Amino acid sequence: MLKGGGPMRMYDLILKKRDGYSLSKEEIRWMIDHYLHGNIPDYQMSAMMMAVYFRGMDTQETFELTMAMAESGDRLDLSGIPGIKADKHSTGGVGDKTSLALGPLAASCGVPVTKMSGRGLGHTGGTIDKLESIPGFQTALTEERFMEQVASVGIAIMGQTKDLAPADKLLYALRDVTATVDQISLIASSIMSKKLAAGADAILLDVKCGSGAFMKNFEDARKLSEAMIRIGKTAGKNMAAVISDMDQPLGRAVGNALEVKEAIDTLKGEGPEDFTELVLTLGSRMLCMAERAETPQEAQKILKQKITDGSALHKFTEFVMAQGGDPSWIEHPENFCRADYIEEIPSVKTGFVTAFNTQEIGVCSLLLGGGRETKESAVDPFVGLVLRKKKGESVRKGEGLAVIYANDKEKLAKAKEHFLKNVTIESERKMPEPLIKEILS
Amino acid sequence: MLKGGGPMRMYDLILKKRDGYSLSKEEIRWMIDHYLHGNIPDYQMSAMMMAVYFRGMDTQETFELTMAMAESGDRLDLSGIPGIKADKHSTGGVGDKTSLALGPLAASCGVPVTKMSGRGLGHTGGTIDKLESIPGFQTALTEERFMEQVASVGIAIMGQTKDLAPADKLLYALRDVTATVDQISLIASSIMSKKLAAGADAILLDVKCGSGAFMKNFEDARKLSEAMIRIGKTAGKNMAAVISDMDQPLGRAVGNALEVKEAIDTLKGEGPEDFTELVLTLGSRMLCMAERAETPQEAQKILKQKITDGSALHKFTEFVMAQGGDPSWIEHPENFCRADYIEEIPSVKTGFVTAFNTQEIGVCSLLLGGGRETKESAVDPFVGLVLRKKKGESVRKGEGLAVIYANDKEKLAKAKEHFLKNVTIESERKMPEPLIKEILS
Repeated sequence: MLKGGGPMRMYDLILKKRDGYSLSKEEIRWMIDHYLHGNIPDYQMSAMMMAVYFRGMDTQETFELTMAMAESGDRLDLSGIPGIKADKHSTGGVGDKTSLALGPLAASCGVPVTKMSGRGLGHTGGTIDKLESIPGFQTALTEERFMEQVASVGIAIMGQTKDLAPADKLLYALRDVTATVDQISLIASSIMSKKLAAGADAILLDVKCGSGAFMKNFEDARKLSEAMIRIGKTAGKNMAAVISDMDQPLGRAVGNALEVKEAIDTLKGEGPEDFTELVLTLGSRMLCMAERAETPQEAQKILKQKITDGSALHKFTEFVMAQGGDPSWIEHPENFCRADYIEEIPSVKTGFVTAFNTQEIGVCSLLLGGGRETKESAVDPFVGLVLRKKKGESVRKGEGLAVIYANDKEKLAKAKEHFLKNVTIESERKMPEPLIKEILS
Repeated sequence: MLKGGGPMRMYDLILKKRDGYSLSKEEIRWMIDHYLHGNIPDYQMSAMMMAVYFRGMDTQETFELTMAMAESGDRLDLSGIPGIKADKHSTGGVGDKTSLALGPLAASCGVPVTKMSGRGLGHTGGTIDKLESIPGFQTALTEERFMEQVASVGIAIMGQTKDLAPADKLLYALRDVTATVDQISLIASSIMSKKLAAGADAILLDVKCGSGAFMKNFEDARKLSEAMIRIGKTAGKNMAAVISDMDQPLGRAVGNALEVKEAIDTLKGEGPEDFTELVLTLGSRMLCMAERAETPQEAQKILKQKITDGSALHKFTEFVMAQGGDPSWIEHPENFCRADYIEEIPSVKTGFVTAFNTQEIGVCSLLLGGGRETKESAVDPFVGLVLRKKKGESVRKGEGLAVIYANDKEKLAKAKEHFLKNVTIESERKMPEPLIKEILS
C-alpha cells in the first residue's frame, strides 16, 4: 500500500482533516474526482469519512463536497419548462406518502412539479414502490417523456434512471458499511448533491424527527435543515424546510397500496388530520416559493379550494393516466385493500396510546413482505397496516389498535407480535407533540 | 458492500468504538482473526483505526489487541536456553546503534541476548543494515542456528525471517497509509505484539523522544512507555523502559558502517560520551532484570569492568565471527570509513550549536543513499556523516560541523545543503537537555 504520489496525496488530506483543519475546494474536488475514478482506495476514503465524523466539515467544505458530488455525473436541465420548478425531498419516515398527495395538489395550483424518487430500503417505503401498486403505472420514463409530461400535465415522478451524483452513490455505499453515515455535513451534502443534480429551482425539505426518522432529536433535525438550506442557497436555489414529528407513523396507513389509498382520501379532503396538516403546510410553502401565492395563509386557502372543488384529485388522476396507471382504481380505492388476510390487532389492555417505536412499526410492514431488506428484494404492494389508534387516543382491552393486511399467515403472526411490542399503552394520557415543529427558510 | 453477517459484524464493532465504548476480548480476537484471514475488508478496518485514533483504547483493550496480534503467527520458544533471556527494543532514532554495543556488552556479563531486528525504513536506520556492512555477516539464521548460537556465544541477532505477528504487519501497513499510526495504544500494541512473539523473558524498552524520534515530546514518550510496560507485565514479562533524548543524533556517527565503527569504539571505552552513557544505563537495567546484578550501581561497575578488560569487544568479535563476519574489520575499524568522498561541512557562522532538526539529519543519510525510501531500495553501507559538533558546543565560521561520507558528488552536495538547513547556530549558548529523561519499570 502506498500513500499515493503526485502533487496531491490522499494521505495528506486524511491527516489534515484528522488534525482538525479544513480542506480547500481544490482538495475536495481532487478527492471526489479521484475517488470516483478509482484512484483513491476505499480504505483511505473510509478513514477520511471517519475523520470527518469526528472533526466535522465547515460550511465552505460542506458546500464544496456537495458541488463536487452534484457535478460528478449527469445533471437534469429543466430550463425548457416555463415557471419555477419545485422539488420536494423527505428525509424519510414511516407512513410517509407525502409526495403522492403534495405533488398533484401543488400541480393543480399551477406549480410545475418535477420529482425523481427512490425505491424503499429498510423500514421506510419509497414513492416509486407506492406508485407501482397502481396497475399499469410506469416509473421508468425517458428524460424527454418526463419533460413533456411536466409541460402538459404539470407533474411527473420518475425513478432515478439517470446517473445522478454517482460520487455520492459510491461514497454513501462506503459510509453505510463503515459507520460514518450519521454526520450532519455528510448527510446534508449527500441529499443536496442529488437535489442539485436534479435541477429544480425551488427545493422544499420535509425533515422528519423522532423514533421513526433518521434524525432522532429536534436539534439534529434543525442542524441538518440549516446545513441543507445553506448549501442550496449558496448554489442559487430557493430553499425552505419544514421539520415535522416522526414519533409516530404519519397518517394511519403504513404499506404501499394502503398509503396510495390514504393519499387519495386526503386529496378528497377525507384524509387523516396530521397528514392533511403536513400536506397543507408543505404545499403552502411550495406555492410561495413558486410565486403562486404571496403568503402561506393565502396559499393554504388556494390549496383547500383545490381539494374542495375536486381539482387536486383530478390532477392526480391525470398524472396517473399520463404514466399509464389504471384510473378506475382512483374511482374505487377499495381496490387497494385486497390482501388475503385482513385482521384486527386487539389491544391487550385498556388505556391511552402514549408511544410508538416508530421505526419498528415500519419493520412490521417489512415483516409482512412490504419492503426491501436488500436492494434485490421483491415487494408485496398490498400488505401493511392501518392504525386505528394514534398517540393520545384511548383504547379498551380487546379493541382494535390497528388493522393488519397480510398475504401469509405466518408473516401476519410475526408482524402482529412485533406491532404489539412496539406500541405503548399507559393508564395516563399524554398529549402528543405538535406535528409541525419548525419552518425554516 | 455488506455490513457483514454472522453472529458478530465488523460494522457493529466500528459503531461501538466510534461511540466511545470498549471492545471486549472476544470482539478484538474476532476482529484480528477475521482481518488476518481476509474476511474483514481494509475499508472497514481503516475506519475502525480512525475511530480508535479519536477514542483511544483502554488498558484491557490494548492488552487484548496485543495478544491477538502476538498470537496471530509464529512464536519463538526460547525455553531451551537456560537463564533469563533479555530483549531490547528501541522506538527508533537517528544514530541509534545501541543494539550493536549493548548486545555484546550484556552478553559478556552472562545475559543471554536474543534479538530479532528489522531493516531501516525512512530516516531511521536498522540494526540488520548496520551489521551487514561487516563483510560476510549473515543475518538470515534458521531458528535452530539462532538458538545454538545464543547457547554457545550468548548472543544472536537475526533478521525477522519468521512470520511473527503477521496481523500486526498487515494492520501497520494499513495504518501507515491512512494517517492512523500515531496513537499511543496502537503503537504500544504493535511493538509489544512483536516482542511477545519473540519470546524473551525480560524486555527493556529504549524509548526516544525529541525531533529525531517518533514521539516528539516527553509526555507522549512516557505514556507510550507506561502502556508498553503494562502490556508486558500483564503478559508475565519483566519490563523496564528508559526514556532518552533524541533532540540530536545519538553519538556522533549517522550511517550504517560509520555507526558500527562507533559501536566498536564504545566497546573499547572510546565512544562518545552520550552514547556510552545510554549503553551503560540500559545495560545496568538489563543486568538487573536478568538477575546478574542486585542494583544498577553494581551493574554499572560490572559493565565498565567488561569494557576495560576487553571482554565486551571480545564478545562482539565472537558474535560477528559466529554469524560469518570478517573479524579483521573489528581489529581495523578504519575499514568502515571507506567512502569515495570524505568532506568537511564548514560552519557558515561563528557561535554555538543550539538545535538539530534531528529527523532531517537522518534524511541526510537517506539522500546519500544510506537508507531506504521504499522497502525495495538498496542501501549503500558506507555513506553517512559524523558530527564534529553537538548541542552546546562552540564553532567558528569555516570550522567543520560534521564530516560527510559520500560515493556520489551530486548526492554529497544535496546532503551538505540539507545538513546546513537543519542545524541551528546561535550566538548564545544553550545547554542541551540531559540524555536520560526517565527510567520506568
